[in-house]
Amino acid sequence: MTTVGILGGGQLARMMALAGAPLGLRFLVMDNVADACAGQFAPMVVGDYTDEAALAEFASRVDVATFDFENVPAESAQWLTNRVPVFPKPRALATAQDRLAEKTLFRELDIPVPPFASIDTREQLDAAVAQIGTPCILKTRRLGYDGKGQFRIKTPADASAAWEALGAQAGKVGLILEGFVAFQRELSVVAVRARDGEFRAWPLTENWHVDGVLSASLAPATVDDAMAATAIGYARKLAEALDYVGVFALELFCRDGELLANELAPRVHNSGHWTIEGSETSQFQNHLRAVLGLPLGDTRMVGTACMLNWIGAMPEATAVLAESGGHWHDYGKQPREGRKVGHATLRADSATELAAALVRVGEALGREAQVMPVVLALRP
Amino acid sequence: MTTVGILGGGQLARMMALAGAPLGLRFLVMDNVADACAGQFAPMVVGDYTDEAALAEFASRVDVATFDFENVPAESAQWLTNRVPVFPKPRALATAQDRLAEKTLFRELDIPVPPFASIDTREQLDAAVAQIGTPCILKTRRLGYDGKGQFRIKTPADASAAWEALGAQAGKVGLILEGFVAFQRELSVVAVRARDGEFRAWPLTENWHVDGVLSASLAPATVDDAMAATAIGYARKLAEALDYVGVFALELFCRDGELLANELAPRVHNSGHWTIEGSETSQFQNHLRAVLGLPLGDTRMVGTACMLNWIGAMPEATAVLAESGGHWHDYGKQPREGRKVGHATLRADSATELAAALVRVGEALGREAQVMPVVLALRP
Repeated sequence: MTTVGILGGGQLARMMALAGAPLGLRFLVMDNVADACAGQFAPMVVGDYTDEAALAEFASRVDVATFDFENVPAESAQWLTNRVPVFPKPRALATAQDRLAEKTLFRELDIPVPPFASIDTREQLDAAVAQIGTPCILKTRRLGYDGKGQFRIKTPADASAAWEALGAQAGKVGLILEGFVAFQRELSVVAVRARDGEFRAWPLTENWHVDGVLSASLAPATVDDAMAATAIGYARKLAEALDYVGVFALELFCRDGELLANELAPRVHNSGHWTIEGSETSQFQNHLRAVLGLPLGDTRMVGTACMLNWIGAMPEATAVLAESGGHWHDYGKQPREGRKVGHATLRADSATELAAALVRVGEALGREAQVMPVVLALRP
Repeated sequence: MTTVGILGGGQLARMMALAGAPLGLRFLVMDNVADACAGQFAPMVVGDYTDEAALAEFASRVDVATFDFENVPAESAQWLTNRVPVFPKPRALATAQDRLAEKTLFRELDIPVPPFASIDTREQLDAAVAQIGTPCILKTRRLGYDGKGQFRIKTPADASAAWEALGAQAGKVGLILEGFVAFQRELSVVAVRARDGEFRAWPLTENWHVDGVLSASLAPATVDDAMAATAIGYARKLAEALDYVGVFALELFCRDGELLANELAPRVHNSGHWTIEGSETSQFQNHLRAVLGLPLGDTRMVGTACMLNWIGAMPEATAVLAESGGHWHDYGKQPREGRKVGHATLRADSATELAAALVRVGEALGREAQVMPVVLALRP
């Protein structure tokens, strides 16, 4: 029996365990809270990621380790590699954890990226605001997640407030100023790379965010083949440069037909949840196949799919369950404002059917605003 | 949080828990062995089904109870109904547990059935052998499973040996003599009935057995629409007569274009395992939806699918995982002769592609004999 250790016990670990069970795998989850939702379907070690005793226990009970959470301290991940194979490798994690290193890598690989500058002092901030122009966004280099640790600078006069909010972080996690991109669309590539270098990507996904949190994803994105190939090419270059093993997501902005890299997520990704029902192989199972050195599964789609995120509390399930292609995912979490508690995926054989299902579900749940952008994108 | 209790902790309970997790359900499994494979993904109560203290603990921790095992004593199931809702209802279970009651019900519902007779004495056996003719099979009325508790009578002279083998059971579980059907094909209907009476069936499945144990299943079965409708009609009549709630399978023989009912399995069924990847909704999730009073999911197929059972020990996974539509199911069991330890499902968009994949897998695993009957059935 192979036991896979997962650092982080949220919904990603939970869905990974559910996807890995048919492979005959066992799981051990490490999280700093005892009621982490993955613990409902896998045994747990409860402890802080910096607690060497807990990490040592975790390492002693697993054959290989991976992540559901990208902000596990890179030092903890590195410490683990002396005891057990860890995928993706801590170096890829370290790059993705640091917005400056990540964006510098994008630039080195000729992947277009919005303007950015490293900020250590107030003076550098003013100079960078002047050079990049407004609007722009001051961000911590590390530990950002879903819009936290960010300050939007609408005019140069906002620089003072931005520095007041985040300046203290300059000497700690570091700061980066990023030019604001007036994009028309957000896209993501969810892809997987095997230990032997084989690379596969799922069809491009289009995403809609509300208040910085993913609200809906549509796959395949309604883009032309050339743009999809360009996006997937960027993802492949990145994965090869990092010698990446496992599933990752590359988030992209699309502005006037041009793609700009936004962020690399070194893990299974919310914008890939539709793969559970919408693809021959889910991102969760392919991540495990990659980590374990098994053949990668086919990433082709079965029809077309839209994922709707449930934030804060679960809606009533009936409207989704009553849809022919309606699939429900309740993460078994307590409701809490801003928390990702579940999602639904609607699958259909055609864009027309998918749009009709979205309209029905939106109306039944009073969530027209959530589904309408997707319905509009599906219009012929 | 709703907790579903499952009596029996084998692979059916395991796959039910995996399918129910996305519905936000929790599970509690009761089994008389501590290492039952469902226990890898759900908490367990270890105890005999006749142990009232264990049953009481089980009942106190669940909101609804169901089965992965049809031979739970009907009295235990009945005892539980005073404490917690139980689906399917113990009456359906009792009928399916007793071959005589089951076949009598088939006959009452005008569902064609091979000749049979109840046997209490050696004299009745001789008379029934003479009337039904040989070959015929003497079986215990209860607790038969995968060919155990059966004796084939090839000529009237075998009656003595049959009585010697099973006669002692006549006064205990009872005996039934069944005419042997020289069938050309074995089919099954896997279907689900909701609490409110809604009925849905998956496309008809064709099955191949080796040594009395399921070896391969193909869906959809290559039968004409009229035969499929007849078979599904029989399943519906049965479900309504029993006020059945949940998933069940009706096994049928096909002889010279005529369908004969063989057996009712009051639970999710091995011949429905292909529904995990081959249908919009798996039998496991639809069973839970039915039991919980949720809307039933769509039972339509996505392409065409073949399930191959792994008996005794798991083969090497690579050949299946390398197939585009190859899906692996390792139940996490210790190998043991005759034990169902896992299965694979091959899914494809066409019969031609499915046949080609089966040939490749059969060759790679040295299992040509297992796949060839399915490949032949898929020939245009």
